Amino acid sequence: MNTKYLTRPTEVAKSFLKETLKKGDVVVDATMGNGNDTLFLANMVGEEGKVISFDIQDLAISNTRELLEKNRLSGVELIQDGHENMDTYIRDEISGAMFNLGYLPKGDHHIVTTAETTIVAIEKCLTFLKKNGIVTIVIYYGHDEGKIEKEKVINYVETLESNKFHVMKVDYINQTKEPPLLITIIKK
Amino acid sequence: MNTKYLTRPTEVAKSFLKETLKKGDVVVDATMGNGNDTLFLANMVGEEGKVISFDIQDLAISNTRELLEKNRLSGVELIQDGHENMDTYIRDEISGAMFNLGYLPKGDHHIVTTAETTIVAIEKCLTFLKKNGIVTIVIYYGHDEGKIEKEKVINYVETLESNKFHVMKVDYINQTKEPPLLITIIKK
Repeated sequence: MNTKYLTRPTEVAKSFLKETLKKGDVVVDATMGNGNDTLFLANMVGEEGKVISFDIQDLAISNTRELLEKNRLSGVELIQDGHENMDTYIRDEISGAMFNLGYLPKGDHHIVTTAETTIVAIEKCLTFLKKNGIVTIVIYYGHDEGKIEKEKVINYVETLESNKFHVMKVDYINQTKEPPLLITIIKK
Repeated sequence: MNTKYLTRPTEVAKSFLKETLKKGDVVVDATMGNGNDTLFLANMVGEEGKVISFDIQDLAISNTRELLEKNRLSGVELIQDGHENMDTYIRDEISGAMFNLGYLPKGDHHIVTTAETTIVAIEKCLTFLKKNGIVTIVIYYGHDEGKIEKEKVINYVETLESNKFHVMKVDYINQTKEPPLLITIIKK
């Protein structure tokens, strides 16, 4: 039995994207980090597709470039800029986007995503999103700034018009620690 | 793209069960209703498996029997008793169970599941559940009794020990109506 994936929001997000994305799609990795989501997306959309990935940190860009080279994957644009500026770089409609909010694992934990820029980035993402397109947002909120970001992001997505979007929240509700949660937005 | 299933808790529940169940499994439909979940489970576990389905209403039993005959499916035990008595009938470990709380669609809307018996049923279910087994609970709470049931069931599952179970809640948070929500319990 394969229930393990159900216990991790990042894996639940991927399972939703797997059901949705297809070869040739244009997608966004809004938080490149160490490149794992970029790699996942590149495999989903194939050589015919395109992944546009954002991060402000040198380390994220170099780690992701290395990971992609190791896996011999192309068709990815690595952009060193904040995801709140994504409209400067995106020219096509997109089928999906991934956000992984918090800090860069194994990086500088003082550099974190923050509510203001995150919400601008989500908003911009939704304007490029196709009908039936999907945005997944995993929120880590163990750190102080993360708690504020979590509240603000939830407050924001709750206000998305119900006739335009489905907003789903996946929460682990019996854990003693603060497990990440997953927001999924689907465009009607 | 196939996002439609993501917008309905009943379909999300089925997608989780599909990932988990296999031929030969023993499973429970705790709320037989019109038999749709029983049919789904019977197809999942195949002829080698077994579905044990519960409902107190004549109409549920007869509708489900008809549906199974139409689909030429056997290996299902239809039990006319409350799901809170399931330990009288179950002899094996189970791999999964489905609950669909509320009233029988197209039946008597005054006959509803209630928190007290539902929680006893969930508790008993968990004692039979295998490691990595999965219980899905879809809660409709448009009716008054449903709101109480929803609160009590959530309060109960939140107390399940985190070293024994993962409890996931799937909620649609931008809808103006009261969309059903999904609780998924996975045994560690």
